[in-house]
Amino acid sequence: MASFLGTLFRITTFGESHGKAVGVVIDGCPPRFPLSIEDIQAELDRRRPGQSSLVSQRKESDTIHILSGMEDGLTLGTPILLMVNNEDARPKDYDEMAEKFRPSHADYAYVQKYGIRAASGGGRASARETVGRVAAGAVAKQLLRARYGVEVLAFVQSIASLSTPIDPNSVTQEMVESTPVRCPDSDMAQQMISLIEEARKNGDSLGGVIALCAKNVPAGWGEPVFDKLEADLAKAMLSLPACKGFESGSGFAGTLKTGSQHADEFRSDAEKHVTTLSNNSGGIQGGISNGMPILCRMAFKPTATVMTELRTVDVEYENTTIKGRGRHDPCVLPRAVPMVEAMAALVLIDHALRHEAQCGNC
Amino acid sequence: MASFLGTLFRITTFGESHGKAVGVVIDGCPPRFPLSIEDIQAELDRRRPGQSSLVSQRKESDTIHILSGMEDGLTLGTPILLMVNNEDARPKDYDEMAEKFRPSHADYAYVQKYGIRAASGGGRASARETVGRVAAGAVAKQLLRARYGVEVLAFVQSIASLSTPIDPNSVTQEMVESTPVRCPDSDMAQQMISLIEEARKNGDSLGGVIALCAKNVPAGWGEPVFDKLEADLAKAMLSLPACKGFESGSGFAGTLKTGSQHADEFRSDAEKHVTTLSNNSGGIQGGISNGMPILCRMAFKPTATVMTELRTVDVEYENTTIKGRGRHDPCVLPRAVPMVEAMAALVLIDHALRHEAQCGNC
Amino acid sequence: MASFLGTLFRITTFGESHGKAVGVVIDGCPPRFPLSIEDIQAELDRRRPGQSSLVSQRKESDTIHILSGMEDGLTLGTPILLMVNNEDARPKDYDEMAEKFRPSHADYAYVQKYGIRAASGGGRASARETVGRVAAGAVAKQLLRARYGVEVLAFVQSIASLSTPIDPNSVTQEMVESTPVRCPDSDMAQQMISLIEEARKNGDSLGGVIALCAKNVPAGWGEPVFDKLEADLAKAMLSLPACKGFESGSGFAGTLKTGSQHADEFRSDAEKHVTTLSNNSGGIQGGISNGMPILCRMAFKPTATVMTELRTVDVEYENTTIKGRGRHDPCVLPRAVPMVEAMAALVLIDHALRHEAQCGNC
Amino acid sequence: MASFLGTLFRITTFGESHGKAVGVVIDGCPPRFPLSIEDIQAELDRRRPGQSSLVSQRKESDTIHILSGMEDGLTLGTPILLMVNNEDARPKDYDEMAEKFRPSHADYAYVQKYGIRAASGGGRASARETVGRVAAGAVAKQLLRARYGVEVLAFVQSIASLSTPIDPNSVTQEMVESTPVRCPDSDMAQQMISLIEEARKNGDSLGGVIALCAKNVPAGWGEPVFDKLEADLAKAMLSLPACKGFESGSGFAGTLKTGSQHADEFRSDAEKHVTTLSNNSGGIQGGISNGMPILCRMAFKPTATVMTELRTVDVEYENTTIKGRGRHDPCVLPRAVPMVEAMAALVLIDHALRHEAQCGNC
Repeated sequence: MASFLGTLFRITTFGESHGKAVGVVIDGCPPRFPLSIEDIQAELDRRRPGQSSLVSQRKESDTIHILSGMEDGLTLGTPILLMVNNEDARPKDYDEMAEKFRPSHADYAYVQKYGIRAASGGGRASARETVGRVAAGAVAKQLLRARYGVEVLAFVQSIASLSTPIDPNSVTQEMVESTPVRCPDSDMAQQMISLIEEARKNGDSLGGVIALCAKNVPAGWGEPVFDKLEADLAKAMLSLPACKGFESGSGFAGTLKTGSQHADEFRSDAEKHVTTLSNNSGGIQGGISNGMPILCRMAFKPTATVMTELRTVDVEYENTTIKGRGRHDPCVLPRAVPMVEAMAALVLIDHALRHEAQCGNC
Repeated sequence: MASFLGTLFRITTFGESHGKAVGVVIDGCPPRFPLSIEDIQAELDRRRPGQSSLVSQRKESDTIHILSGMEDGLTLGTPILLMVNNEDARPKDYDEMAEKFRPSHADYAYVQKYGIRAASGGGRASARETVGRVAAGAVAKQLLRARYGVEVLAFVQSIASLSTPIDPNSVTQEMVESTPVRCPDSDMAQQMISLIEEARKNGDSLGGVIALCAKNVPAGWGEPVFDKLEADLAKAMLSLPACKGFESGSGFAGTLKTGSQHADEFRSDAEKHVTTLSNNSGGIQGGISNGMPILCRMAFKPTATVMTELRTVDVEYENTTIKGRGRHDPCVLPRAVPMVEAMAALVLIDHALRHEAQCGNC
Repeated sequence: MASFLGTLFRITTFGESHGKAVGVVIDGCPPRFPLSIEDIQAELDRRRPGQSSLVSQRKESDTIHILSGMEDGLTLGTPILLMVNNEDARPKDYDEMAEKFRPSHADYAYVQKYGIRAASGGGRASARETVGRVAAGAVAKQLLRARYGVEVLAFVQSIASLSTPIDPNSVTQEMVESTPVRCPDSDMAQQMISLIEEARKNGDSLGGVIALCAKNVPAGWGEPVFDKLEADLAKAMLSLPACKGFESGSGFAGTLKTGSQHADEFRSDAEKHVTTLSNNSGGIQGGISNGMPILCRMAFKPTATVMTELRTVDVEYENTTIKGRGRHDPCVLPRAVPMVEAMAALVLIDHALRHEAQCGNC
Repeated sequence: MASFLGTLFRITTFGESHGKAVGVVIDGCPPRFPLSIEDIQAELDRRRPGQSSLVSQRKESDTIHILSGMEDGLTLGTPILLMVNNEDARPKDYDEMAEKFRPSHADYAYVQKYGIRAASGGGRASARETVGRVAAGAVAKQLLRARYGVEVLAFVQSIASLSTPIDPNSVTQEMVESTPVRCPDSDMAQQMISLIEEARKNGDSLGGVIALCAKNVPAGWGEPVFDKLEADLAKAMLSLPACKGFESGSGFAGTLKTGSQHADEFRSDAEKHVTTLSNNSGGIQGGISNGMPILCRMAFKPTATVMTELRTVDVEYENTTIKGRGRHDPCVLPRAVPMVEAMAALVLIDHALRHEAQCGNC
């Protein structure tokens, strides 16, 4: 129950950080779709550790293997198993962690729940679990683009107190990928890189905010009550490691406006194409897309593993201290960008199929 | 697919704002539980319009009817149907809305999705849909209290720029209910009330932030991957009308801290009872409760209906203007407090049952 | 978890036999569909007790009430609540049953599960629970007919050892409805009626077999693994009260043939329209419809309530005896015909929507 | 949506017959359970082709690989990936099948649904898909035995017209495994073996009936409405390749009895342990187990692939003929026995967890 997501385009991820493999099964993918393996690999490469000095130095090729669901480059409509082997697990780095609970990690909570945990590498609580999400998200992205022209784009908006005022609608993937920190504002990107490098040297870590923009989403996707489009996006984002906040459109800042200031007035052009003059709604009204760009922002806390000594308890619940070891990201945000895009794409393709099922033939 | 929530304690709501009735079916409620109808009614009374001058003046008794699932005051384990009749619908107030889309309302998006809408009263997009949620949430609250001692408490933390610095752990239900605005800080509450009254006189509306605290949640509830406890809370909250943001623990503000500042260090007392020295995690780590209070905050936008003239399009997609009519809340937050508590209780009882199912016998 | 069915066209039933009301919520119905209330009522009238001397004499008008999800005769795409009030409950008839477990009834099993039961009238285990199924099935039937030309027809094939050799493909609804026993073979129908009347006089009861034929189901509905079309039909049928067997196509008799005898050879006509020369597959191959009529048969056991004295235990688990009272069907099959059609229609419309969702745009 | 089963103990299978691998992900397995890999392998060996002359001669070691969800021999509570590589695929045997639809196979229906199929080896419609089911079922069996003492046992009751009258309650696994046909009646087993050998020599195939008995299932498992225990068993069984019929308890034969003959009278012993004098209900009443052995029977049609020439159409829908090739089972029943046990175990463990979730703490 913990490990699947989606109603019609349904994924189940599997694998521990230091187990044999991690991956995903996709059930419900439309048939006869020419899936590009290269595009899946490209997304995994954006997520991969070791891609820059800003992230974990674990060495993983993250080569994708497709074990089922395709033939001659086309999807069969049957479950697609995407798998990546774990190549550079170093369990010895985790000997101390097997005896002590790392503060702000999932270790303690796992043991309270299950009475057992895969101590090495954080098990399923590791960011390595997101390999399956990103691989499945790459499939979703291809479907969204080919069928609907939908583009999903995320970028780093802030690191600690460094924040770019860039307009999400103006950002391109090239701008995002032009620096390893994945902030499309190149001046701000340099400052962010310096700040992260400094945090790493101090054995400390940083958090920040990622913005997401989904363009060309047709009006009508989403559901009006519990499965509101922004509710499902919120869930998908909060399910990512280290994510602690979500806002849609104007979000928390929108609470400072009055209703008349906040209203997104409608205008129609000569072709009766309707848009809104502002987009405080973030492209979603009543849980349903309104044809404007979908905009949301996610807060990621600073990485829990730091190289300073912290107070904690051991597995016998005796007080002790612990100091971080192992290879960790001083800041998860650069690698979280493709994760955020993947989660958004998974939510959107699921709602696209749901919409067609209920309303497609009317 | 739009209208149910939960895995084991599953609810389905039904009803349009100006239809015959609104309500909920609860499937999966444990049997032999002595359910208090009075407590369900009390929660509905907190949600009811007309309870103060701060909220909509629609006159509804919201008297609860239980049509199935109980006998002699005990739950049978079978579906519980809770229903409230609509008594004060005034469809004529909505004649203009049938012809025009209200800005920032769900009207336009509904029509793009379904090709039809219940124009009168906003249909399912009305806050009236939450009657079923609050009724079901009242059942969940009783179960949580009786079985686990869990208390779920929400309150208004800010209205527009007025914000109370009160510690959520110190707030009691009595403090919350002592003013109609449901802010436990009585000085701030008076200012908020004045501000809302002023907005109403101006035909305008206000938003704000609600904080939630759930106490005595045992460590171990939640799931480690997609159904993280905070992910399910985020979804539940964002599914409420007008909610545009969610944060767990330190949330967006936590992105300004470093990892060493943000760490919630563990300490054990003489009885080996473990707590954390801070609670930036908001009681949830790796998606699983850690025994500390669960803390989250939700942003609610200003009510979309305002009494000033706004630009919009009509149902033929011609440009026009519209001015709000009907009975509306100048600020939804006072009534959203019981809704937030209901959603939190529904998520928690579902995870309680899920936890027992998988881990209860180990 | 007990009380909902379907993935996209999802129903939840509620209500006890002697409670205030019984009914169903339909979630996921396509919008803008002109639903005929008369057709729903007509199906309920076929299911109703008291319609002939062959069935229970409980007096219920079973008048349908639609409380949500429709406006001006069209579906809104939102949940449709269909409800029927209970008018003729006679709890006193059940005084003895509150103290003793009726053999072959659900009484004992309910108490073992829940520790409580709605003794009067059998609670949810009563055939009265099927009111909601038949009402929802009537909606499904209308959708299937209007969108796909699919017709779902069931009839009584055998009562005890009386069995008609009629070809299911030749049966019409008029033939089925021409006698109260709902066997389209009029000679056999008369014999069946006599046999049921005799069983009733003896205070005994009879079982039998119902055949179902669904015509014009397009090839391609169903799923290839767990949700095979015949698997979902089997589940739906076995979920009906008193149903103890299901077979698809040649079923149990097919095990007596060899593979070469059993093969449904394909033939194509001048328009390249493909049919099979026989239909041992019952219109389903590999879990997916092949365009031939869907054929299946269901066994219904004799009604458990008989007016003779039987050995049983009381609620203290002491040995005792019990003799049936109350108003019961001497044979459930005539009323089970509309129930069987409803369940088939619910399964088919759900798979129609699922098929469109995954494969509709390819 | 096609490829998962279960509510709390949820499995997703993947893999084509001639793809790289087949397997299953199990989500929701209780943690800290000492899973025996040997027992999983033993079940796969019972399902394996090539184990006797009665079954397909495809050469597969079917060696199980566990890629996630376990550490030090204990389950972690996280998804368990069980995988088997395909070693002996012979795609060339299927060249003709790529051009023509085999009668009574899933080929034609797949193409109507998906517009594509994995022609080689039957893709997902091959019995090879059941590797994942049997592996997951082996986990379920271990849990059922260790936690509840439940034993699930199936055996071949008939092949064509050869049928054993053996009492299911008296059958042991040793008796079943003593002959390759898996009929516990050794005289009848020899006749069945001869008949199957003869069918194979003739290039033909045979069907038959498998009986299942589940002992020590406590009273109270199952759900009263749609997810009745026998409804979920029926679905699970009908989802197996070649299964065309299901009956619970007295099944179709029970329709020949009167209600008074069919009643399972209750008796209580000195310890107030309740049993029934007969078991026409097959251990399930009102969809809920009553503590008696669960008994059901499943019809399996003769294998569709026969070595005689049959009429069919090609992929251009032109009339043609086809003659079977490749390695096939002349009779699926011996290998279907472990499949039937696996499906029963998967249904039972899921209902065990569901029961504990709703009723465990009452």
